[in-house]
Amino acid sequence: MATLSVELATKLVFWLFIQNSLCYEPTWESLDTRPLPSWYDEAKLGIFIHWGVFSVPSFSSEWFWWKWQGEPTSNVVNFMAENYRPNFTYADFAKDFTAEFFDPSEWVELFQSSGAKYLVFVSKHHEGFTNWPSKYSFNWNSLAVGPNRDIVGELMNATREHTDLRFGLYHSLFEWFNPLYLADKQSGFATQDFVNHKTLPELYELVNTYKPDVVWSDGDHEANDTYWKSKEFLAWLYTDSPVKDTVVVNDRWGQGVSCHHGDVFTCRDRYNPGVLQKHKWVNAMTIDTRSWGFRRNAALSDYLTIEELLQTFITTVSCGGNMLMNVGPPSHGFISPIYEERLRQMGSWLKVNGEGIYSSKPWSYQNDTLTQGVWYTSKTNTSGTDVYAFIFDWPSTSVLSLGLPKTSAATTISLLGYQELFSYTTRQPAGVDILVPAIPISKLPCLWLWVFKITAVEN
Amino acid sequence: MATLSVELATKLVFWLFIQNSLCYEPTWESLDTRPLPSWYDEAKLGIFIHWGVFSVPSFSSEWFWWKWQGEPTSNVVNFMAENYRPNFTYADFAKDFTAEFFDPSEWVELFQSSGAKYLVFVSKHHEGFTNWPSKYSFNWNSLAVGPNRDIVGELMNATREHTDLRFGLYHSLFEWFNPLYLADKQSGFATQDFVNHKTLPELYELVNTYKPDVVWSDGDHEANDTYWKSKEFLAWLYTDSPVKDTVVVNDRWGQGVSCHHGDVFTCRDRYNPGVLQKHKWVNAMTIDTRSWGFRRNAALSDYLTIEELLQTFITTVSCGGNMLMNVGPPSHGFISPIYEERLRQMGSWLKVNGEGIYSSKPWSYQNDTLTQGVWYTSKTNTSGTDVYAFIFDWPSTSVLSLGLPKTSAATTISLLGYQELFSYTTRQPAGVDILVPAIPISKLPCLWLWVFKITAVEN
Amino acid sequence: MATLSVELATKLVFWLFIQNSLCYEPTWESLDTRPLPSWYDEAKLGIFIHWGVFSVPSFSSEWFWWKWQGEPTSNVVNFMAENYRPNFTYADFAKDFTAEFFDPSEWVELFQSSGAKYLVFVSKHHEGFTNWPSKYSFNWNSLAVGPNRDIVGELMNATREHTDLRFGLYHSLFEWFNPLYLADKQSGFATQDFVNHKTLPELYELVNTYKPDVVWSDGDHEANDTYWKSKEFLAWLYTDSPVKDTVVVNDRWGQGVSCHHGDVFTCRDRYNPGVLQKHKWVNAMTIDTRSWGFRRNAALSDYLTIEELLQTFITTVSCGGNMLMNVGPPSHGFISPIYEERLRQMGSWLKVNGEGIYSSKPWSYQNDTLTQGVWYTSKTNTSGTDVYAFIFDWPSTSVLSLGLPKTSAATTISLLGYQELFSYTTRQPAGVDILVPAIPISKLPCLWLWVFKITAVEN
Amino acid sequence: MATLSVELATKLVFWLFIQNSLCYEPTWESLDTRPLPSWYDEAKLGIFIHWGVFSVPSFSSEWFWWKWQGEPTSNVVNFMAENYRPNFTYADFAKDFTAEFFDPSEWVELFQSSGAKYLVFVSKHHEGFTNWPSKYSFNWNSLAVGPNRDIVGELMNATREHTDLRFGLYHSLFEWFNPLYLADKQSGFATQDFVNHKTLPELYELVNTYKPDVVWSDGDHEANDTYWKSKEFLAWLYTDSPVKDTVVVNDRWGQGVSCHHGDVFTCRDRYNPGVLQKHKWVNAMTIDTRSWGFRRNAALSDYLTIEELLQTFITTVSCGGNMLMNVGPPSHGFISPIYEERLRQMGSWLKVNGEGIYSSKPWSYQNDTLTQGVWYTSKTNTSGTDVYAFIFDWPSTSVLSLGLPKTSAATTISLLGYQELFSYTTRQPAGVDILVPAIPISKLPCLWLWVFKITAVEN
Repeated sequence: MATLSVELATKLVFWLFIQNSLCYEPTWESLDTRPLPSWYDEAKLGIFIHWGVFSVPSFSSEWFWWKWQGEPTSNVVNFMAENYRPNFTYADFAKDFTAEFFDPSEWVELFQSSGAKYLVFVSKHHEGFTNWPSKYSFNWNSLAVGPNRDIVGELMNATREHTDLRFGLYHSLFEWFNPLYLADKQSGFATQDFVNHKTLPELYELVNTYKPDVVWSDGDHEANDTYWKSKEFLAWLYTDSPVKDTVVVNDRWGQGVSCHHGDVFTCRDRYNPGVLQKHKWVNAMTIDTRSWGFRRNAALSDYLTIEELLQTFITTVSCGGNMLMNVGPPSHGFISPIYEERLRQMGSWLKVNGEGIYSSKPWSYQNDTLTQGVWYTSKTNTSGTDVYAFIFDWPSTSVLSLGLPKTSAATTISLLGYQELFSYTTRQPAGVDILVPAIPISKLPCLWLWVFKITAVEN
Repeated sequence: MATLSVELATKLVFWLFIQNSLCYEPTWESLDTRPLPSWYDEAKLGIFIHWGVFSVPSFSSEWFWWKWQGEPTSNVVNFMAENYRPNFTYADFAKDFTAEFFDPSEWVELFQSSGAKYLVFVSKHHEGFTNWPSKYSFNWNSLAVGPNRDIVGELMNATREHTDLRFGLYHSLFEWFNPLYLADKQSGFATQDFVNHKTLPELYELVNTYKPDVVWSDGDHEANDTYWKSKEFLAWLYTDSPVKDTVVVNDRWGQGVSCHHGDVFTCRDRYNPGVLQKHKWVNAMTIDTRSWGFRRNAALSDYLTIEELLQTFITTVSCGGNMLMNVGPPSHGFISPIYEERLRQMGSWLKVNGEGIYSSKPWSYQNDTLTQGVWYTSKTNTSGTDVYAFIFDWPSTSVLSLGLPKTSAATTISLLGYQELFSYTTRQPAGVDILVPAIPISKLPCLWLWVFKITAVEN
Repeated sequence: MATLSVELATKLVFWLFIQNSLCYEPTWESLDTRPLPSWYDEAKLGIFIHWGVFSVPSFSSEWFWWKWQGEPTSNVVNFMAENYRPNFTYADFAKDFTAEFFDPSEWVELFQSSGAKYLVFVSKHHEGFTNWPSKYSFNWNSLAVGPNRDIVGELMNATREHTDLRFGLYHSLFEWFNPLYLADKQSGFATQDFVNHKTLPELYELVNTYKPDVVWSDGDHEANDTYWKSKEFLAWLYTDSPVKDTVVVNDRWGQGVSCHHGDVFTCRDRYNPGVLQKHKWVNAMTIDTRSWGFRRNAALSDYLTIEELLQTFITTVSCGGNMLMNVGPPSHGFISPIYEERLRQMGSWLKVNGEGIYSSKPWSYQNDTLTQGVWYTSKTNTSGTDVYAFIFDWPSTSVLSLGLPKTSAATTISLLGYQELFSYTTRQPAGVDILVPAIPISKLPCLWLWVFKITAVEN
Repeated sequence: MATLSVELATKLVFWLFIQNSLCYEPTWESLDTRPLPSWYDEAKLGIFIHWGVFSVPSFSSEWFWWKWQGEPTSNVVNFMAENYRPNFTYADFAKDFTAEFFDPSEWVELFQSSGAKYLVFVSKHHEGFTNWPSKYSFNWNSLAVGPNRDIVGELMNATREHTDLRFGLYHSLFEWFNPLYLADKQSGFATQDFVNHKTLPELYELVNTYKPDVVWSDGDHEANDTYWKSKEFLAWLYTDSPVKDTVVVNDRWGQGVSCHHGDVFTCRDRYNPGVLQKHKWVNAMTIDTRSWGFRRNAALSDYLTIEELLQTFITTVSCGGNMLMNVGPPSHGFISPIYEERLRQMGSWLKVNGEGIYSSKPWSYQNDTLTQGVWYTSKTNTSGTDVYAFIFDWPSTSVLSLGLPKTSAATTISLLGYQELFSYTTRQPAGVDILVPAIPISKLPCLWLWVFKITAVEN
């Protein structure tokens, strides 16, 4: 009679347990147990890219079509009346999505230079135009009309060949004007033709073909997760898909799901709660404050300054979020220098100050109580906790008073990128007064925002 | 105990019989039992109309896309290289399908003037572009790109409002480059995604929306009727569809079906067998001998002359066929005068000679044995059979000898459109010598082809 | 002392006389003495060709621009509003004058097949666009925008290489919207900037470069010949130009000049006086009755039938005119088959009946007094005068009575293209009754219009 | 006998003298005597604007046409081959010069915000396309094709209505491909058709219509001033034109003229000699270092940084020059934010430091001998000379040593935009050591470049 050794039995049980834990069920109960792949929280900064047929009119925003013919708004309606023949249709724009300057290697070099660690590229927006030759979008995709190229494929290859960036994809579940969707909608989402034959098949196709590290879902809000079959998709994605170990998904999988389920919560666009969140979240925001798609007539004042970008970034990271910073390329494919400038400024700043960002954790407190415009992150190592204080304005006096860090005997205080240590005096019951020398501008390690590192704090 | 009267029982049986006979099964055995709606054979002449994105390059033929990128042929490949930017795609043409002169009332007035009794309009050709706002062809249809109009709908309305023409639709089952189709094809047609979610749903949509009197199927030849689910569609069409009583279908429903099943056999393009057929058939042919779609560079010699058209028509009708004569409108929608001329010539001839055509039947013989270029039709009425002899060349001598009609005592011989009766002598064992006076051209009832009516023949 | 022999003196005087007679002065008195080059009257039929930027909208007529923005007419204004963006300009059309199918060899083969003996091609219409790379029309010519070809040059070469047709050019003196012209006009034509620096230099350039056999001037009517410097140009053209021996000019050289001076009188478009003219004239007319430029939406009823064309031609030639028959090619350059049909019909008829046309002279009478629809030409040779009677309708009785020709003993009467001679009886005091046999249509030498030749007439 | 009082005679003589001095002769001797209108030297900064058909391809530079077809260079030739149909012409681009976002009020607000005091707008570049409805450029101007607007006129009106900027115009004498020019050139400039009938008339038209404060000539280098009739034009411009009192012209009026005659010397593009010049000069330079016209694919590194712009500006002004800083708008007319940023940065800096710039004069020395990157300007008033020292790098030590300014007892030293005076010690024989406190960045009056004001210097 065969016997099973305890050792072997233990191994078997463990293996079964592992298998089971990796075998997700299409319920939120099960899906919510999935741990967040570690790369994501460490990355902090991603680049969002919105490119599509909306980049041709390049006016108002990527919601152009909707504002023209869905819920007509006067500026878009007038723009069409003044510049196009009466019977011009939205699909007529596609031919002029020429992409003649689209060089994926140049793009990814630029994105990497920003200090970002991953990309999220719009594979298909609400207009339904797929930036890859989708099997399910005949003649309404980037190989069949306009660019005559597999844009997603080219960008994926360049990303993986030339950088160590993670490559993610945005995908809109709904399509404003797709008649299959409209029919389902009219049925009160009792029918699921659009889900079964259009949006879900192409989502599987996307994942299987391009193996994205992020699946950013959007356009879910009109119907629930049962209609979208989101739970089934995610169970597959986590269990059987080629990216099951690395993929990170957001939370837009059906009415009521956002901010409740998913690897990372987006809640709403430009979400930046200002207080620590219990669940990993992301601030998806735009450099052009008014649009995700490129606008030919965006003025300088529409773009965030580098100071605004950094402050948004720091408050986001302090509270446990990632920031996904959006770039909108023009239809010809060469990224506008104002975007390039912001991206490279970001990268130059991170080169000096990345230590307080990448792989950091929120500290016990997020922003200071004594001095406004000071936010914190932390890192814990064998010798204790180091706190990074991000100072939005350079101190105008020689003392910078912080109300929260509790220094220890071992505590040292320095400025990232600057050689010397600073003197300080401890405040009671907590806090510290740092003596800040009047460093001339020529000796500052960076501009815009500065990081003081306070080692070995006790709280 | 309830009893059933004989009367009632009889009625019930009859009703059940009727119901049953009208309830077709998805088998050819059952479908083949359906009688041909009578209007079709009586009509004899229909107009075929090919209009689509191929009308934009308007070069080579409606197979332009295939000849460019399916099986590249040099003239089309060169045309693109010489006249378009390198990355131009076929779908890029759609924007220029402007249709600014498309006036459906003008079209149908013209088509009716030709003497035709029905239309067959290309709702979708192999390119997949639907000339109506198909729910299944998002942004690859005539409302979404190019014309910005429901062309099928407008033409249907004009036809039914302004004429008594029957309105039919052509529909291509396959689409050369639809990736869903290509995937099914690659599977050896084991999968049916294209049929289930694209071509069949839109065929049902077409029938339900536009209630066509003809459903002309095409593009079937690469797969069998099981793949296409043709028998199921036809069972529905004959049994439950809104056009079950009047619709006529052709025979292109799957590999091996053509020339074997369907209300009317097309066999192959420009089919004109020259001998009587057992089953109703149709000669689908083109006025431009080289193309169904409009060609901007078609020369006069490419168009059939009115004499050639009439001879083709007569030989077709003599052998039991209908003729479906094709017109290709330009992308702007105004039908070219050379087409208009042929159509109106046809109509002017039919005004004089329609008696021998409409509602006629093939006679015992189709063409004469003594004189070449003489073809027959017939009509039977209470006083016997009248035979119409169509003479391709006006007799060059004063006697026209026919070898087949057997005259009776009651037989009279006349020329359609001409007042006087002609003398004749009877030949043995059959046939007749007609004395044809030298009618000056100014007194001829028509040009091109003439019809002698021989009443009360005995065979 | 030197003496001059009589012989030498005579020669000298003769030479001086010759020189003088060929040296025209810039006065109508002198210019009017120039004899008409003989080829012109012998030719009878020419082809006029209108092609330009107006062929792009191809709507309304070649006066499109004027009807849109000169004296706005609603159909053109609406056409623009419905089909173009609000700021679209006329010059924006030029880019789409693609001419991709323009094959000059094909054109001239077709023109020759019509039986015409010369061409008059529009080198520049009132829009000012030159169909050759004029030195004086920078970026508003066919090499610089649109076709990217020297159209005049290519057509000239093809004409002279492949045919024996004479090659002529139309040239508009004024340009509707040329600001130089408008300024001269505003000055009451006191200034001549437009003439001196634009229209006259390019006219010299045209003649020197392309050596046209016809210079057809137009657009003269707003100013007099002094403004246009027409007399100076003509004196040069007749005396010193490379075409001084062969060139023929029309009569549009300034207000009041038309119908009074010039080699050939045009008087007005479609001029057809119906009675013999003292001066050589031409009937410039159009196959499309409503336009000289191609109209995409011209219906069959807008085109003259072959019967109408031939009747116009015959009445013109009978009264001493030439006919210049206009063809309007589409912007792509392939001549529409309806035009081709008319041209080849014309040629087929002239092949049979050209004898009564080419090199003929008006007869003593132009049309018959007894039978309507009979017009005459004549030829005189050593054995007397032959008269050609053109019969518009085939006689409906067996006798054709003509009231004018006086037969002689030697007179024979035949039908051109038909073998046998016809019997006739002489009428008194003049005229003839011709016995016309009932020729069956299959034996007629031609359709549409017939020519009886009556030899050796006495009047 | 009438006598003339001495008083009256004196007045008369003076009046005659004035008249004479204002009546310039068409010789350089005379023209060179004209004094420079004072506004120009005081202004220091102007904005150059290059906009035209070259803004449509927006690739390579405003010399696109020349690089494509004049002296073909591979990148431009390839660009055309890859993105346009084979027969595409340069003039075909004009239709897409749509200018739909061109808002002249927005433009001039932006230009004024830069601190510039005048504009020089390209009215016509070497391509010959006029940005106003020139009488001499039929259908190759901005009203007739493309924008459908009088761009020069709209910009002039906005400038004069909304700002106190001076309005100047650039005008190219030659046109690369104008056949009139090419003919003159081929004659070795013996003929002058192009000058007489094209470029000179339109220059007069420009001045008379738009009354520019600057006439910036260009494209002169292939021919001499006799060919161009420059001296005659300038004599008129200085003596009789509507702008005779205010207009400033540059020095490009014929081969050999540049750097020798004219109100202001340009010598060559981006001229910046680094030493004091005897004659007023200007540094015409570009923010995009590689092009004057907008390039869609210009990278951030192609644009000068604000530090580079300011250093170029300061060295220019120190040596007596003006700087004319070029902006290239896209074909749609909305100025790119990277340009806007540079312009507004410039303006924000000038708001603080304009005192040392506007109406300043070169000092006795231009740059310092002890410290690199220090340049001077000066202003003299009743209490002596104030010197402005422009410091490119903020001092890295607490003492800034200057080798040249000789302080007096009254000398004070301050930083523009900063309240307090600085201590200093005088060096021998000249120079000064300034004690620069370590001003924290938050208290600096500006970034990028700083200005020390040293009053009452003795040299």
